[in-house]
Amino acid sequence: MTAMSSLRLGAAAAMAGSRRGNLTVRMSFRAMSTSQKAPDNPDERIALAAELKPIHDVLADRVKITDPDSYALYGRYKAKLDVNFAKQPAKGKLVLVTALTPTKAGEGKTCTSVGLADGLNKLPDTTAIAALREPSLGPVFGVKGGAAGGGYAQVVPMADINLHFTGDLHAISTAHNLLSAMIDNHIQWNAKPQLDVRRVEWGRVLDMNDRALRNVTLGLGGTGDGVPRQSFFDITVASEVMAIFCLATDLEDLKTRLGNIVVGYTRGGKEAVTCRDIGAEGAMTALLKDAFNPNVVQTLEHNLAVIHGGPFANIAHGCSSVVGTRAALALSDYVVTEGGFGADLGAEKFFDIKCRKAGLAPSAAVIVATVRALKLHGGVDAKELTTENTQAVRDGMPNLLRHIENVAKFGVESVVSINRFPTDTEAEIQVVKDLCKELGVDAVVAEQWQHGGEGALELAKAVQGLCDKADTSKFKPLYPDEMPLVDKISTIATELYRAKGVDISKEALTKLKRFQKDGYGHLPVCIAKTQYSFSDDASLVNAPEGHTLHVQDVRLAAGAEFVVVLTGSVMTMPGLPKRPSALDITVNENGQISGLF
Amino acid sequence: MTAMSSLRLGAAAAMAGSRRGNLTVRMSFRAMSTSQKAPDNPDERIALAAELKPIHDVLADRVKITDPDSYALYGRYKAKLDVNFAKQPAKGKLVLVTALTPTKAGEGKTCTSVGLADGLNKLPDTTAIAALREPSLGPVFGVKGGAAGGGYAQVVPMADINLHFTGDLHAISTAHNLLSAMIDNHIQWNAKPQLDVRRVEWGRVLDMNDRALRNVTLGLGGTGDGVPRQSFFDITVASEVMAIFCLATDLEDLKTRLGNIVVGYTRGGKEAVTCRDIGAEGAMTALLKDAFNPNVVQTLEHNLAVIHGGPFANIAHGCSSVVGTRAALALSDYVVTEGGFGADLGAEKFFDIKCRKAGLAPSAAVIVATVRALKLHGGVDAKELTTENTQAVRDGMPNLLRHIENVAKFGVESVVSINRFPTDTEAEIQVVKDLCKELGVDAVVAEQWQHGGEGALELAKAVQGLCDKADTSKFKPLYPDEMPLVDKISTIATELYRAKGVDISKEALTKLKRFQKDGYGHLPVCIAKTQYSFSDDASLVNAPEGHTLHVQDVRLAAGAEFVVVLTGSVMTMPGLPKRPSALDITVNENGQISGLF
Repeated sequence: MTAMSSLRLGAAAAMAGSRRGNLTVRMSFRAMSTSQKAPDNPDERIALAAELKPIHDVLADRVKITDPDSYALYGRYKAKLDVNFAKQPAKGKLVLVTALTPTKAGEGKTCTSVGLADGLNKLPDTTAIAALREPSLGPVFGVKGGAAGGGYAQVVPMADINLHFTGDLHAISTAHNLLSAMIDNHIQWNAKPQLDVRRVEWGRVLDMNDRALRNVTLGLGGTGDGVPRQSFFDITVASEVMAIFCLATDLEDLKTRLGNIVVGYTRGGKEAVTCRDIGAEGAMTALLKDAFNPNVVQTLEHNLAVIHGGPFANIAHGCSSVVGTRAALALSDYVVTEGGFGADLGAEKFFDIKCRKAGLAPSAAVIVATVRALKLHGGVDAKELTTENTQAVRDGMPNLLRHIENVAKFGVESVVSINRFPTDTEAEIQVVKDLCKELGVDAVVAEQWQHGGEGALELAKAVQGLCDKADTSKFKPLYPDEMPLVDKISTIATELYRAKGVDISKEALTKLKRFQKDGYGHLPVCIAKTQYSFSDDASLVNAPEGHTLHVQDVRLAAGAEFVVVLTGSVMTMPGLPKRPSALDITVNENGQISGLF
Repeated sequence: MTAMSSLRLGAAAAMAGSRRGNLTVRMSFRAMSTSQKAPDNPDERIALAAELKPIHDVLADRVKITDPDSYALYGRYKAKLDVNFAKQPAKGKLVLVTALTPTKAGEGKTCTSVGLADGLNKLPDTTAIAALREPSLGPVFGVKGGAAGGGYAQVVPMADINLHFTGDLHAISTAHNLLSAMIDNHIQWNAKPQLDVRRVEWGRVLDMNDRALRNVTLGLGGTGDGVPRQSFFDITVASEVMAIFCLATDLEDLKTRLGNIVVGYTRGGKEAVTCRDIGAEGAMTALLKDAFNPNVVQTLEHNLAVIHGGPFANIAHGCSSVVGTRAALALSDYVVTEGGFGADLGAEKFFDIKCRKAGLAPSAAVIVATVRALKLHGGVDAKELTTENTQAVRDGMPNLLRHIENVAKFGVESVVSINRFPTDTEAEIQVVKDLCKELGVDAVVAEQWQHGGEGALELAKAVQGLCDKADTSKFKPLYPDEMPLVDKISTIATELYRAKGVDISKEALTKLKRFQKDGYGHLPVCIAKTQYSFSDDASLVNAPEGHTLHVQDVRLAAGAEFVVVLTGSVMTMPGLPKRPSALDITVNENGQISGLF
């Protein structure tokens, strides 16, 4: 959100004085001094200046939850809902927020999701909940960027959400690493089934950007210190445990899926060895038990937000937890959720993996676009983004229009939300509206960053209109379960990416055949592809056609229940930049943290 | 506590029916079904059967805290107190619980601490708080053994305390590993001051028993994946961050100490490179901010317990946090706290490191002894412990008597607490009482395991008596700050361990000279020695004399502010046993965890 934030500094600074400038900072359980220097970053300043309501008041006010047995407080402004809410009947309608193909200009999916939920809450007799992903610690210390919306469409308490929150990621790391330790202990004691140390596919994780851990040799030292072998660390959000956590429907399902994880193979690759063979799934589930209860916080407008789970959007499905979404659907009229990256990845995985497996049927989709991003897809240089250029917008529109068409293929109707920047002109916006209209889709301007829910009111009404006429029985995944894995890949590539075909490496093909033979052919596929193009080549922006999708490798996620399809190298352990943002983060003697954005 | 637990099964089973058998299990924020099968382990069964009070009621009832701004709830039964309580004037008296030299028979320090606090709370108009260490996750999955007391002297909620609790250990791991990632990032970008990759002394940590991580090679892969070098992982409680966390007096002190950590040296060992040179101390403090607020839970008798911090007792000082102790002293008449291992290590470090640095003056010490342990020190075979043998008790008494003498050298008076087992005979107990009496020290029988605070009432009265007549101005550490490091080691070895001298390796002596020259000579020393003997030879039980203490290596803990003295190999990353207890831990569909003891 950094690009957006700095661009909007002027407007926000003017507003902060009038709207929220005089409120007490209260980020911890003890009210903070108000003499703090205001941070330079407007997102951070707005978040810090916000006056929060106790979360139990928000629960009582917005969703009529008053029984203290049904939630657990984590401080005054965070709580965990009993996961059993996820088993109650859904009363709400599910809305997906997705986006055009991302560019350097940023899109603002989370900001739009929060603003839309705030906007829906402004409609008469209407409650809406934003169901979002929880951020990883890694990026917080690397390149600046909070992951809690922006401007006046944020979830708070910001510092808590961006740091440890309620400890979910720590619980996931610990569960993952318990299995890792038990695997090496299994090898150490030469237990059955005997793992081939060269075929152990389960690494370790840390919620940290730490490139030096990408490739490690462990078990050095001596006979008492493990068996030497090569291994790796991923960042926690890339763990299959995270994907499982987000797809499991209850504790029993969680335990079963954890048990199903394939951790490696016996000598010669003959037999798969599972987490259940190691015996770790019970203790892993015990470690995840509290974390599995969905987290609730509030938006700046004191509406409820569920923030729970946050898997990678490339090697995993990139959606917040099923239990969080279901709990929200049981409690409110609308649930606004998001998928990672553009609609080619985020919406496809949301529909084909999360909705398919969890039995969810979305009522509408919002496709977020910015005039700036359309110009980049239209071929304009990044330096020229602030100059009016209707032709460039027109030239970039094929990207957006293809995403609209793609979403329609799942039986879901969409509205385009133009995330407005001060430099956008009326003429440019009109181009977007006109071309969307030709596809029968409305495009509305949304100004939640500047005005919160009020700024997203038109979007909220458009979404309500779509939901009112939606027939969720028309929702269907792109391909049926029984389609062979290879054909599933082809279907996505040709139907959505508009590739002319798929080139699968020999290694990948061998594995796909084995997965098919071993009984995993019914699983959906999860394509790991660059988010910057419909193709597997990041430089092919806008709406490329006739390209070939190159499948280099595939991986089985037997617990998460999908087959990962790798179309290029995927970084699962980021590194820190030359000047990490951790250098600017600190806390003063009053306990106030600064530098998080 | 396992040995004790099984021995006491009969008595506890009989009691469970009459005292607590019909109470509702309520371990989560939603009341659990009562139809669970009772666990086999009595400690676990008692903990699960306990009816807890909401922690805010315990705070209001026991220490009159009612302002919700002064604490943060973590669920219904855990909270964090505002760390600023640690700055309020102390009104309470500080009591240390320590023990004779540990044996396989177990002593029960934590059980005694909890029971004593419950006993003191039974005295008229008296409040007492137990200030204890928080357990590490590692042992939970390795060899069975909860770390929350035992029998009817436990702190609850047991499962929470033994698993993630309020996330403190995760915060400490993350802060530690952020520094690690920033160090390798510093090396990757060749930043100044230039670290010698062979002289980086800062490893990584996980809160897990994982022997395969003891020795690792990291930075493999290629130029973008770090600089290859050998490194290591410790378990989190062995981290210097944990020691700092426990000794820091406020957030500013925490940040300063973190900045002081020496992470390695430049080429040739010329210059020390600190955490401040890397720039990590601000972000580390931000990560620790919430964790730094002391945790409060309750005993089975609904008295308050502070459980905060838990450093290793060998390479660190083995005491719970200074801020937790100080907060407790501000809130109650008595604070009962403990040190790790026997008094030669635990009491010495408590007095010479924690009390010295934090300006605390204890009013009394309790030395826990068991008839069984005395028999082992007296030379009896472990299989013969249940047979009456007054001579063996008499033969083992020199161990206990020496601990009593040693504690007196700090100007602190003590009482011996005989942690009673069903097989102890009156004659055996009388031997202990008589020989203690000769030194002018009372020995009282304590039955908190069987009877909670009621069972520790005589002990509580004895402690109250000592405190009433205590003159805390007589408390003094064993050696002055200005004594040279080498002499500090000698003083402890000869005065407390009764060694005839110290043999310091050439390498250690060189380092000690450098520390002295670099301005660290004023720090206390922290001796890492086997807990099973006054000497550095674990086989020399009872009260050896005339031995030599062999100092093999020393390490600077510039942030924690002590010099670690290694007298043998110290395991800082445990391994899992052939059959880890994780195999027995699971959670049922109602979210009830079993197998934790």
